[in-house]
Formats: sequence, structure tokens, C-alpha cells
Amino acid sequence: MDIEKYIRERAAAVNKALPAFVLGLKGAQPRLAEAMVYSLAAGGKRLRPVLMGAAYEMFGGRARDILPAACALELVHTYSLVHDDLPAMDDDDLRRGRPTSHKVYGEALAILAGDALLTDAFTVLLSSKYPARVKPAHVLRAAAVLSARAGARGMVSGQAADLQAEGFLRGRLTPSRRAAGRKLLAYIHLHKTADLITAAVEMGAALAGAPEKDFRAVSAFGRELGLCFQVADDVLDVAGDKKKLGKSGSDARNNKLTYASLLGVEQARLEGEALLRRSLARLRGVRGAAAPKAALAGIADFVYRREN
Amino acid sequence: MDIEKYIRERAAAVNKALPAFVLGLKGAQPRLAEAMVYSLAAGGKRLRPVLMGAAYEMFGGRARDILPAACALELVHTYSLVHDDLPAMDDDDLRRGRPTSHKVYGEALAILAGDALLTDAFTVLLSSKYPARVKPAHVLRAAAVLSARAGARGMVSGQAADLQAEGFLRGRLTPSRRAAGRKLLAYIHLHKTADLITAAVEMGAALAGAPEKDFRAVSAFGRELGLCFQVADDVLDVAGDKKKLGKSGSDARNNKLTYASLLGVEQARLEGEALLRRSLARLRGVRGAAAPKAALAGIADFVYRREN
Repeated sequence: MDIEKYIRERAAAVNKALPAFVLGLKGAQPRLAEAMVYSLAAGGKRLRPVLMGAAYEMFGGRARDILPAACALELVHTYSLVHDDLPAMDDDDLRRGRPTSHKVYGEALAILAGDALLTDAFTVLLSSKYPARVKPAHVLRAAAVLSARAGARGMVSGQAADLQAEGFLRGRLTPSRRAAGRKLLAYIHLHKTADLITAAVEMGAALAGAPEKDFRAVSAFGRELGLCFQVADDVLDVAGDKKKLGKSGSDARNNKLTYASLLGVEQARLEGEALLRRSLARLRGVRGAAAPKAALAGIADFVYRREN
Repeated sequence: MDIEKYIRERAAAVNKALPAFVLGLKGAQPRLAEAMVYSLAAGGKRLRPVLMGAAYEMFGGRARDILPAACALELVHTYSLVHDDLPAMDDDDLRRGRPTSHKVYGEALAILAGDALLTDAFTVLLSSKYPARVKPAHVLRAAAVLSARAGARGMVSGQAADLQAEGFLRGRLTPSRRAAGRKLLAYIHLHKTADLITAAVEMGAALAGAPEKDFRAVSAFGRELGLCFQVADDVLDVAGDKKKLGKSGSDARNNKLTYASLLGVEQARLEGEALLRRSLARLRGVRGAAAPKAALAGIADFVYRREN
């Protein structure tokens, strides 16, 4: 299986549908809608919706039947990036090579665009028509998973802990501070990144009406995969900096606590590899259709090895 | 009926339940949870949840059965205040006599607390246990109403138009600019304020499984009531300023477009009275139980006459 081709093709369907969902919100203030579409159109690998589709197919569905739910998750991911880039947060000027939302639309509208992307993720998820096999109770469960994983016991707490961790590295790294750093970092990664990736596969399982046992198995896979994703990201951030010779990303500028900064790149790489192995072991434990299961394994491998 | 006592009693049940929903989100980052509870505990009349309960009872339910949904709406309302107060938005230091969230917790955490309040409104609404008469399909409908009314075709667009209107009054008010101002103001009031009040009664009807015709009738009532609420608010803002002798609220400071600033206080009062009459006429057209219907009429009257 050519996994990069698979991801590209699945992502293309998401890219095609995404702006239409926002533009379908008739009556939206034009500049607000423009800011929402601007951030959605910035690209990205669309890994979360692709994961959701594959998880759904593993339990017998066809990914295109749950496209609204897949797009809803990408709306939530996009909102989190828009707010994360704000001057009060990471203060980033560029995202995927383009000026960030607040650079183009101003801070106030960027805050509102993020708010609307988050809110309308639920509009898209809850108001769309699904084929009869996607029962209202399944949609309800998927929406509950999304809000729980994205909210105060999920992603937002990861962001809050990330703020708390800023400047952590300025102090000397004694063994006990290093241990405290690892603990804090595990919390940040679990919530800031792994929760939304876990939500992707959980929502796929929920929409397919997967039995509770399978839901839990796929959830465990998503968690390890999400942690692996963030470690790989940390390593890339450092590698990317080296290539650009001093043009530091915001992680380095903000003295951010990452696996790479805390453990060094080599140790972080090993950690990532262990997480990849663990996620694949979890996936083997899931009962599901072979082809989408192989796709999920391919995506996990890609997540660890990707270069951007 | 002593309507102020009715509102106080109904609000007390909401006040009791609200922090518990946030503190029930186990695993939330402690400072984030504290910021969420801080803004929820700031008080307020809890009109939206009280309206939802009354609308639900009009179609045969008991308000306490839908307390999670009522609290979810108050979470959304609270998030909107936290973000509205931010330096990039209205830049308010005080809310209900207490320092605003960003004054206490900093801008970054205030943004995150708002994000979490919004997201977890859906967690509370979708994950709570309801009595069997509140069917999953009813909860799904109520959640779809909430996201649509709060999102880009609803409340957030009202906020975006409000930003756009800032400074409108600095230019000379020619008749054609005054007409344009009225049109813009109607859009702002409809979305910024009326949409969430409409959502309150619509969600009550949706949770009761009210027939489509009744849903639409109660929705029309909510819309006029919401518009009346905002006009009364504009009048109060000016009256409040006069009493405080120069201690201007943010509306006046930001040269904000309001009914009072555009039409003068007396004309705005008349407009509010007309909206009150229209909302009561709409309410008479709703088929529903007499006592909660009388309560809704009393609340409408209170909204127009209140002094804070």
C-alpha cells in the first residue's frame, strides 16, 4: 500500500468539502466567514479526518458516509491552531508558510474565527444528513467524544499546561527537575495532541456503532499514536531549525518544554520509536476489517517517519 | 405571580449545578478549571436557562429534568462574555463588579477558559443522563440548535458585525448613514443577543419533543424577546452612565453603535416597548401549558422593565 497516496486521496475529499461547510452557514458575517475559510484552506495533511475515515471503515462503513464528522474534527483542529498562534499565546506570524489569521484579520477577528470554527464543528457534525446506518445515537456519541476530548479535560488543558511550562527550561535541569519536566510533558502531550487524535479514531468507531470493547481498543491505539505524533513533531521542530540555520520556530523562541529539549534529539527519537511500536501492538489487538487496519498501521508508520 | 421570585428560585438551581459540571470534568488543568469556575460564579440573572426551563415546561416537562442543557447554555453565554471582555475585543476590566477573567488570569488563560466553557457546554449537554422522556434525538436536536445559534450564522457573526460597527458614530449622521446604522444595528442585535435567547426557548421546545409548528412559534417569541432585551440593555447602559457621572461603560468609550446612541434614549425606549408587545403577541400564539406560559410573559415584561 502506498500510504502517502492513500492519505493524499483521502485528504482531497476533505479539502473539497471543508470550505463548503462554512460557506453553507448562510447569513454569516462575510469577513468572519472569509477568516474561517482562510485558515481552513491553509492546508495540512488532514490526518485526523483521514484517521476517522479509516477507523470507521475498519468497523464496516464507507468513509464518505461520515465526511461531515471528519470535517467537523478538522474544524476543531483548525480552531486550536488559530487560537494557539495568537499574540497572547505562541505569538506566531506564520503557519504552513502563510501569515497567521491574526496577522491578516487582526486579533479580534482571529479570536472570533476560532470561536466560530469550534462552535460550527458541532453544527456540521450534528446538523448534517447521514445515511440511515449512521444512527442519531451514534452521532450523539461521536459529538460527546469530540467535546470531551477537545474540552477542559482534554485539549484545552494541554494548552493550559503548555503555558504553565513556558520558561521551564530556563532553570538548571537537576535530576528532580528533569523528572518533573517529563511528568509535565507527558500531561501536555497526552492532552494537547493525543486527545484529538484519539478522538479521531474513537469518533470513527462511535459512528460505526462499534461494540464497547472495540471502542476501547481503538482508543488505546489512538492514544499511543497521538503521543508518537507529538514526539515526532518535537524532533522535527529541532531538525527544521538546524536546516534553517538559526531561524528558530516558536518552540525554541519560547523556550518550550519538548521531548527534544528535555531529553535531546536522539533520546526523543528512541521514545518516538517505542511509541510507534506500542501503537502498532494496540492496533493488532483491534478486531476489524484488514484493509483499513493496514491503512491505520501505514499512517502510524508515516506519522513517525514524516519529514514535515 | 411574583416573577422576580420565580426567576431567583429557578436561577438558584442553575447556580447550584453550574460549578459542579466544571469540577466534574476530572483531569482538567487546575488553573484552567479555576478560571472557568471564576467566570461562572460571577453571577448574573441566568435568564437563558430560566427561559429554557419555562419553555420546556410549557410543553409538559419539568425544568429540573433538563438542568444539564440549561447549564450548557449558560456555559456558552459565559464563554461569550469572557471573550467579549478581552483586550483585543471590548477591553473591559470589570464584569458584574468583579475583575474580568483576563485581569485575574492573564489573556492567554482567559482565551483558553472561554474555549473550554464553549467546548464543555457540549460535553455537559451531550454526556449527561436525562430521564427516559428526554430522547437522544431530542438532545441531538437541542445541541444542533445551540451550535447553529451560537456559531457563524448566529452569535459570533453578531460579535464580528459589532467590531465592524466600532467608530461608526464618529462620522456625521446623515439620514442615509443613520439608515445604514439601523440596518447594521438590527443585524448585530439579532445575532449578538437575540440568537442565544432564541436558542434558550428553542432548546426547551426541542428537548420536550414539541411539534415543528410549536417549535417555530416559540422561536418567533424568543427572537422578539431577544431584540427587546438588547434595546433595554442599550437604554440601561446610557442611564447607568448618567448616574455614574462620566464613568463611562465600554459602549460609550468605544463609541459603540447602540439604539440609544443612534436614535436617542426616548426613541429607543419606544422601540423596546414595541418589541415587548410583539413578543407577547407571539407568545399568545403558542399552544402550551398556562402557568409556564404566564411565567414566560412575566419574564418578557421583566426584561423590558429591569433596572440592571
